[in-house]
Amino acid sequence: MFLAQRRFCFLGNKTEFLKTICSSKILGFSTYSKMSSKLKNAKRIEGLDSNVWVEFTKLAADPSVVNLGQGLPDISPPTYVKEELSKIALVDNLNQYTRGFGHPSLVKALSCLYEKFYQNQIDPNKEILVTVGAYGSLFNAIQGLIDEGDEVIIIVPFYDCYEPMMRMAGATPVFIPLRSKAVCGKKWSSSDWTLDPQELESKFNSKTKAIILNTPHNPLGKVYTKEELQLIAHLCIKYDTLCISDEVYEWLVYTGNKHLKIATFPGMWERTVTIGSAGKTFSVTGWKLGWSIGPHHLIKHLQTVQQNTIYTCATPLQEALAQALWIDIKRMDDPECYFNSLPKELEVKRDRIVHLLESVGLKPIVPDGGYFIIADVSSIDADLSDMMNNEPYDYKFVKWMTKNKKLAAIPVSAFCNSETKSQFEKFVRFCFIKKDSTLDAAEEIIKTWNRQRSQSGQNV
Amino acid sequence: MFLAQRRFCFLGNKTEFLKTICSSKILGFSTYSKMSSKLKNAKRIEGLDSNVWVEFTKLAADPSVVNLGQGLPDISPPTYVKEELSKIALVDNLNQYTRGFGHPSLVKALSCLYEKFYQNQIDPNKEILVTVGAYGSLFNAIQGLIDEGDEVIIIVPFYDCYEPMMRMAGATPVFIPLRSKAVCGKKWSSSDWTLDPQELESKFNSKTKAIILNTPHNPLGKVYTKEELQLIAHLCIKYDTLCISDEVYEWLVYTGNKHLKIATFPGMWERTVTIGSAGKTFSVTGWKLGWSIGPHHLIKHLQTVQQNTIYTCATPLQEALAQALWIDIKRMDDPECYFNSLPKELEVKRDRIVHLLESVGLKPIVPDGGYFIIADVSSIDADLSDMMNNEPYDYKFVKWMTKNKKLAAIPVSAFCNSETKSQFEKFVRFCFIKKDSTLDAAEEIIKTWNRQRSQSGQNV
Ligand SMILES: Cc1ncc(COP(=O)(O)O)c(C=O)c1O
Ligand SMILES: Cc1ncc(COP(=O)(O)O)c(C=O)c1O
Repeated sequence: MFLAQRRFCFLGNKTEFLKTICSSKILGFSTYSKMSSKLKNAKRIEGLDSNVWVEFTKLAADPSVVNLGQGLPDISPPTYVKEELSKIALVDNLNQYTRGFGHPSLVKALSCLYEKFYQNQIDPNKEILVTVGAYGSLFNAIQGLIDEGDEVIIIVPFYDCYEPMMRMAGATPVFIPLRSKAVCGKKWSSSDWTLDPQELESKFNSKTKAIILNTPHNPLGKVYTKEELQLIAHLCIKYDTLCISDEVYEWLVYTGNKHLKIATFPGMWERTVTIGSAGKTFSVTGWKLGWSIGPHHLIKHLQTVQQNTIYTCATPLQEALAQALWIDIKRMDDPECYFNSLPKELEVKRDRIVHLLESVGLKPIVPDGGYFIIADVSSIDADLSDMMNNEPYDYKFVKWMTKNKKLAAIPVSAFCNSETKSQFEKFVRFCFIKKDSTLDAAEEIIKTWNRQRSQSGQNV
Repeated sequence: MFLAQRRFCFLGNKTEFLKTICSSKILGFSTYSKMSSKLKNAKRIEGLDSNVWVEFTKLAADPSVVNLGQGLPDISPPTYVKEELSKIALVDNLNQYTRGFGHPSLVKALSCLYEKFYQNQIDPNKEILVTVGAYGSLFNAIQGLIDEGDEVIIIVPFYDCYEPMMRMAGATPVFIPLRSKAVCGKKWSSSDWTLDPQELESKFNSKTKAIILNTPHNPLGKVYTKEELQLIAHLCIKYDTLCISDEVYEWLVYTGNKHLKIATFPGMWERTVTIGSAGKTFSVTGWKLGWSIGPHHLIKHLQTVQQNTIYTCATPLQEALAQALWIDIKRMDDPECYFNSLPKELEVKRDRIVHLLESVGLKPIVPDGGYFIIADVSSIDADLSDMMNNEPYDYKFVKWMTKNKKLAAIPVSAFCNSETKSQFEKFVRFCFIKKDSTLDAAEEIIKTWNRQRSQSGQNV
C-alpha cells in the first residue's frame, strides 16, 4: 500500500495535526521517513527472521513435485480422531474459553496416560500444561526458565527452532555434534551416531542452565539408549542443570528399540520438562496442541509464560484430543491402539524408503524412531553449477533435486548452527509418513533417475 | 509427587552418578535442595504469575452461581460457524500443518473483509498475520516491536494482560486514566469517560515507543469518537510512536455510535497494528484465533515472533473461520449478517441489564459498545467485614456478591495498575452476552436482593 493513498479520510481539524501532515508534504517527505527508528524490530528478534520451512515449503508447493520435505503426514489421521472433532464442533459450550493451563478433561486424560510410564500419579492441574503444539511448550519452557546469559547445551543436528528460541531468550547455545562410528559393510544406523562422553562433559559448567534432549530424534531418527540417557542424567545432576526433553515422536520406535523417558531416571523428575505433541501422536499436525509435563516447581513458570502470551488453547481441539486419548488409553496393549499400530505401519514405509534411496546410490542412515530418514547424497554426481554459490551443499542439492527430479526433501544443515553446517551438508532429510501412492510416485521418480544414472555412467 | 517415589528405575552404574544420589540420601536431603538456583523462573516473568481470571473463574465455578463474570458467551454461536468446523474436521489435509503466518484461504478472506474498511487493498501474505487469539497478536506485537526500556502508554482501565505483557518485554508502562465528567440527572454513559488532552500529551516523550488503544473498550464499553482518535493520531505522529489498536469488539457498537479504525487516519497506517479476534467476531471464544493487520514493515516483525514461539495456528479452525467469514462478507449490508445481527441482539440485552442493575441501586455506566457493563457499587451497603482486608473494595464486593447473592462479576480494579486501583475500586464489571435464561436467573437474584433491601432499609 502506498502512503499517499492512505490519506483519504478524516482530515484533521486540529492545527498542530495539520501542520505535521502539511509540513511533511511540503518538505517532500512523508511522515514515514521521519519515524524510521520506531519502526524497527525489538532487539530480541534481531536476525531471527529466516526459516527453513518458509523457504522449502514454497519450493515444494509446485503440484508436480513429490513432497518428502516437511514433516507433514499425508496418510489419513485415525477416523475416530476426526469424528470426535466433528461432533464436538456442534456443542455450544465446547466452542468457548476453557481453563488456561489446559482443558480439564484433557489434562485428566494426559495424566492418566502418562502415569503408566512414570509409574506415579501426575497432578493434572499442577504438573501438566497444554500448549500450542510442542513448539509452544518449547517456547514456554525456554522463556519461563532460561535467563539472558545462561548457557544451554544443544545436540547437533537439532530441530531447527531450538537455536532461535534460545537466542530470543538472550541465552548462549552451546553446541555438541552427534558423531558417527565407522560402519564397514553393515547398514548405517541412527544408533551409530553418538555423543562423545568427554566432549559432552566439557560443555557443562556453572553457567549451564539446561540441556535440550530430543528422543526419538529429528532428523536422525536416533532413539537414545538407557546408557546414553544415564550419562546425560548424571551430568545434569552433577552440574545441577535442567533438562528439556522433546519426546514428540515417543510412540514411533521400531523393532528392537524402546523409548525411555529421562524424567523417570533417578533424580531427574525434579529437573526435567518433558514435551509431547498431539500432532505427532495422532498424525494431526494441524491441531497444534502439545503439552509439558514436569514437577510443579518448573511447570508453574511455563504456566506464567502461557498466561502472558496466549492465555489458553482452542477448546474444541482440546476436548476432541481428550476423547481420542481415552479411546487409546483403554486399549494400550491392543495392536489396534494407534500408539502400537502407527509405528508398525511406519516401519514398513521406513524399510521401503531405505531400499529406494539405496537403489539410487544415496546412503541412508536407517532410523530407529521418528518418521524421518537422512541420507548421504555426496556420492551423487549432481550438476549444481547453476545454484547460488554461498549456500551449503545440501541446500543446493535439495533445490536441484526438487527442480530436476521433482522430489522435495529438507537439507540437514538447516538443523545445524553455522559452525557445524559443514559437518552435515552432505545429508538431506526425507519424511516417510506418506501414503503408498506418494511413496509410489517417489519410487517412480527414483527408478527413472536410476535408469538415467546407469545410462550416463553416474552423472545425473 | 515425592522425590523418593521417583527413584524407582534404572539405578545408575556410573560411580559418580551413584555418589551424587547416595550422598544426598545419606545427608538426609535430596538432590532437589542442592539445585534451588536452577529451578528458579527466568527474570522476565518475575511477579507476573497472578491473574484475575484464574482466581475469579474458580469462584464462579459453583453451579448455583449465575456467572456474569468472564467474557464468555453462553448464547449459541451461529450454526454455520459450528457446522463449517464440523465438516472440515473430516477432511484429511485440513488436519495438517498450514502456512505459518496464516492459512491461505483465511488471510484471503480477512484481506477481502477489511479492504472495505481501509478502502485499500491489504496484502494477505505481507500485511496480515493470523495468531492464537487477539491475545497472541498483542504478544507478538509487543515482543516484535517493544524493547527493554521503551515506554508504552496504557489507558486505564485496560484489558488486564497489557501490563504484564509489557513487563515481560522489559518495557515501562506509562498509565493515563479515563476520567468521568460529572453527570447530573441524565444516564451515565461510557462516552462521559474521556482522556484529558493535556494529561495525554504529557505522557508522550522521546522514549515513548507505542500507545495501546482499545476501542470498543473493555471494560468500559467506550467507543472512541473521531475527535478522540484524531487527537491520539496527532500525538502518535508528533512524537513518532506506534499505535497498537485492539479492536476485538469492532462489530459490537450500539445505536448512535460508529466504530472507527485509527489505522485509516492520515499518517496512521504506517505506524499502526490493528488487532481482531474470531472469538469475539463469531462468539466462539474457544477457537482462539486472532489477527494483526498493518504495514509489512511492522507485520514482518510479528511474523518473526510467531515463527519462534508457536510457528502456526490450528488448520481446521482457520479453514472454518475463512468459510464463515465468506458467508458474512457476501451479505454485509443484510441485517442477517452476523456483524449486524449480533449487535442488535446485544443492544436489547444491554438495555435489560442497565435496568436490572439500576433497580437494585447499582449505578451502571451505559456502554456504547462491547459486551460488558460496569457499575458503581459504592451505594450498596454490603457487609464485607469477613473479607480479607488487604484487597481492593471491588475484589471484596465481588466475593461477597458471589457468595451471598450467587451472582458473579469481575472487579474493575483488576483492569488497573497498582497506582490507579483506588480510582476504580468502586466498580464491578458484568458481562451481558448471555442467553435469556441466564439473564432471567440474574433478574431473579436481583429482584430478591431488591426486596431484601427495601425490607431491611438498604442494608443487604
Ligand atoms: C523434534 C520436534 N519437536 C517439536 C516439533 C513441533 O511440534 P508441534 O507441531 O506439536 O508444535 C516438531 C515438529 O516437527 C519436532 O520434529
Ligand atoms: C480487549 C480485549 N483484547 C483481547 C482479548 C483477547 O481475545 P482472544 O480471546 O481472541 O485472545 C480480549 C478478550 O476478552 C479483550 O477483551
